[in-house]
Amino acid sequence: MKPQTPKGTRDFLPQTVRKRNYIFDTIREVYELFGYEPIETPAMENLETLTGKYGEEGDRLIFKILRRDQKLEKALEGLYDSPKYSGAAVGRKTAETELSDFALRYDLTVPFARFVVMHQNELTFPFRRYQIQPVWRADRPQRGRYREFYQCDADIVGTDSLRCEAEFVQIIDEVFTRLNIPVRIKLNNRKILAAMARFAGVEDRLTAMTVAIDKLDKMPREQVLADLAKQGFTEKELKAISELLDVAAQSNDDVLSLLEARVGGVQDGRKGFEEMREVFDLVGSLQSAELRFDASLARGLNYYTGTIIEVVPLTKQSVGSVCGGGRYDDLTGIFGMPGVSGVGISFGADRIYDILETENGFPAGRTVGTKLLFANLGSGPASRCDEILPHIRKAGISAELYPDEAKMKKQMKYANDKNIPFVALIGENELKTHTITLKDMETGEQFAVGLEELIAKLQENNLK
Amino acid sequence: MKPQTPKGTRDFLPQTVRKRNYIFDTIREVYELFGYEPIETPAMENLETLTGKYGEEGDRLIFKILRRDQKLEKALEGLYDSPKYSGAAVGRKTAETELSDFALRYDLTVPFARFVVMHQNELTFPFRRYQIQPVWRADRPQRGRYREFYQCDADIVGTDSLRCEAEFVQIIDEVFTRLNIPVRIKLNNRKILAAMARFAGVEDRLTAMTVAIDKLDKMPREQVLADLAKQGFTEKELKAISELLDVAAQSNDDVLSLLEARVGGVQDGRKGFEEMREVFDLVGSLQSAELRFDASLARGLNYYTGTIIEVVPLTKQSVGSVCGGGRYDDLTGIFGMPGVSGVGISFGADRIYDILETENGFPAGRTVGTKLLFANLGSGPASRCDEILPHIRKAGISAELYPDEAKMKKQMKYANDKNIPFVALIGENELKTHTITLKDMETGEQFAVGLEELIAKLQENNLK
Repeated sequence: MKPQTPKGTRDFLPQTVRKRNYIFDTIREVYELFGYEPIETPAMENLETLTGKYGEEGDRLIFKILRRDQKLEKALEGLYDSPKYSGAAVGRKTAETELSDFALRYDLTVPFARFVVMHQNELTFPFRRYQIQPVWRADRPQRGRYREFYQCDADIVGTDSLRCEAEFVQIIDEVFTRLNIPVRIKLNNRKILAAMARFAGVEDRLTAMTVAIDKLDKMPREQVLADLAKQGFTEKELKAISELLDVAAQSNDDVLSLLEARVGGVQDGRKGFEEMREVFDLVGSLQSAELRFDASLARGLNYYTGTIIEVVPLTKQSVGSVCGGGRYDDLTGIFGMPGVSGVGISFGADRIYDILETENGFPAGRTVGTKLLFANLGSGPASRCDEILPHIRKAGISAELYPDEAKMKKQMKYANDKNIPFVALIGENELKTHTITLKDMETGEQFAVGLEELIAKLQENNLK
Repeated sequence: MKPQTPKGTRDFLPQTVRKRNYIFDTIREVYELFGYEPIETPAMENLETLTGKYGEEGDRLIFKILRRDQKLEKALEGLYDSPKYSGAAVGRKTAETELSDFALRYDLTVPFARFVVMHQNELTFPFRRYQIQPVWRADRPQRGRYREFYQCDADIVGTDSLRCEAEFVQIIDEVFTRLNIPVRIKLNNRKILAAMARFAGVEDRLTAMTVAIDKLDKMPREQVLADLAKQGFTEKELKAISELLDVAAQSNDDVLSLLEARVGGVQDGRKGFEEMREVFDLVGSLQSAELRFDASLARGLNYYTGTIIEVVPLTKQSVGSVCGGGRYDDLTGIFGMPGVSGVGISFGADRIYDILETENGFPAGRTVGTKLLFANLGSGPASRCDEILPHIRKAGISAELYPDEAKMKKQMKYANDKNIPFVALIGENELKTHTITLKDMETGEQFAVGLEELIAKLQENNLK
């Protein structure tokens, strides 16, 4: 019976690691270019740091670490001795709290909040940080949903400046320009959503309204409204919402003004529209991304308090959003440090990977490891390879000698399988003439070259 | 009450992440240069993949993941309903096996073995892989020992060639030359150790002997021998061992020959010495590392079958070994795939970090994030900064604008705290004259420059 990885987790083979690193490196380079600094937090957090932060469902999906040694034994005894105990009656939640002390991080936001509170005296605000690390969720595994996956977050905290929102739009534009993926960046503002709800007379059901209209890109308007009707929205309320959606659905540049003319007058509404205009102003012109105000965008409503951001790819394949984020007023209140405002975004590396894979978008150079294989034609020739190899590597070229004197066919298959673009052959003949036979594995061409020529040829190929 | 990280785990602040990445990047670049390919495995493995692989003590130190939902409830019920159950009598081991399904990886070797077996048909052998990922151990935390730490492994499997051993010596030399840490690479061979034991008439107590002599760099010879006497070694046996140690302790180049003259005649002994000589021959000359045969080196005996390698720093501070490894005959037999031979090494990043920190060995350039801060002197000047910033970043220079119009003192403190080497000032004056005032934060000097000059100045500074 072959051993397996846990359901919902993955091994990554070399080619895939290289492609993934291309994505992570691109995001990292752009974050660094904009002054964001790397931090790392441990995979495990104390259980109480995480519980209660992601809702009932989230708590269930947190991977918990079993207590160890005497503490486990004591916890078990405690559960068994409890007069309340009878089979499962002790309850899953009690059992989990008693039996585990640590948990695997579920996202990077709560650990970041914990980090800011814990290190507040070591940090200088405004604090720009990025963090690219895996998170774990005990979701039922399914296509495209994994139990271990990377998040690529950046946040700036400790400032209200709308320049932050604009900066993140520029960062997103830079990342997807570099990755050569056309995208639409959608912006909205939580205050505009609140004004819309107020205007329609449903401000007490803001969440229900926004959750519903957030689905407009997946289902027709009638169905969205029918769902709301089922939840008790009156015909009059639905008519008001529908009229706002008519305005919002217009794709011309004036949609912001048109919507403002309707709902800008209600409380807080003006502020939302002002912020939105200011962000658009500060963003300036973008390199490749399309920027659009979208009144039906409504992500993570309870957390965000100002601008919200979502990015969808404009490729044929529909994979949902590839980046999202927004402004929040209170990152760290849950840990007793109120008033820390900020903006954050997160890139979805797995979805970006799928797009690049489908669109053949990974640069060829990034998937090459070893550039030059020296075939092993016996111990005499191999000694000559040993002498040459340090010079090749000194020139920054990844190179290796096949370790055994195996059949040529086997060595060539190895080069092919490993995607090595060049093979160097040194046999008795080459030893005599002090040359190297260089074989281009793509074209099949062979050249007799000296060491310097060999290095020049490989470096030239590197630039392509 | 401030939130904390779990005992024995660490947050890494930006400066520390940068320094750690310098170490990881150096190791990664060298591995790549020698043709090693990156792989990644999940943090969690199935519990049964890990248990029984690290001995009784190791099993105890594996972090185990609590089962979830109905499966947890069922497991608890099973434990409670068991007629055998009475308090702790059910036993820690049974409880752990019943209550957990996954576990955090304890090292990178067992997951690699599992990986090779699982993907054997996708891999081409000999397979060179490297893997730089964290591992978790439920050790009692203490100074310098953490519950989450990175391992930096490389292995080549599927070949018996002694070139592999030599290659790893070259890799170690290259890594520590790049890190500018003087080291001694100690080599021994498990077959030589076996021959020594046979010669002394203690072949049935090989492990006891090698564990004891492995301690010679930490305690005096008399104490080591006294420890063996306590374990029942006879005076005659100890005399024979002591004589061999006299030979081994000589620091001249002939120690290999001298020891061979003594024990080379016994069964398998000759092979060990042949292998050792061949490896020394193949290594050739090194750049900075000192290479030495050390008959008292005896690491991980049960696992290794040929050459063993250990690297100690030659710095004032004594931190133990910074790299180790060796040849094994059977990586994957535990998972039903026998006969996979190979060589592997592992660098200890935390110890290397401590050395570089103490010796001031981190290159200054690697600890700089943002290179240029634009001070924010109001919305008019800030708009000019917004226009300039994309050009700076296009030139590959990390730059940011302070998001708020704060007091100059606060902005300068920010630049200082963040270790930003240059600050650009654009006020009303600079707006009029179309210049930028550039302040060198190290020297305090100020220059009035144009955009191109500014970029040139920063790039020039980059090269230093």
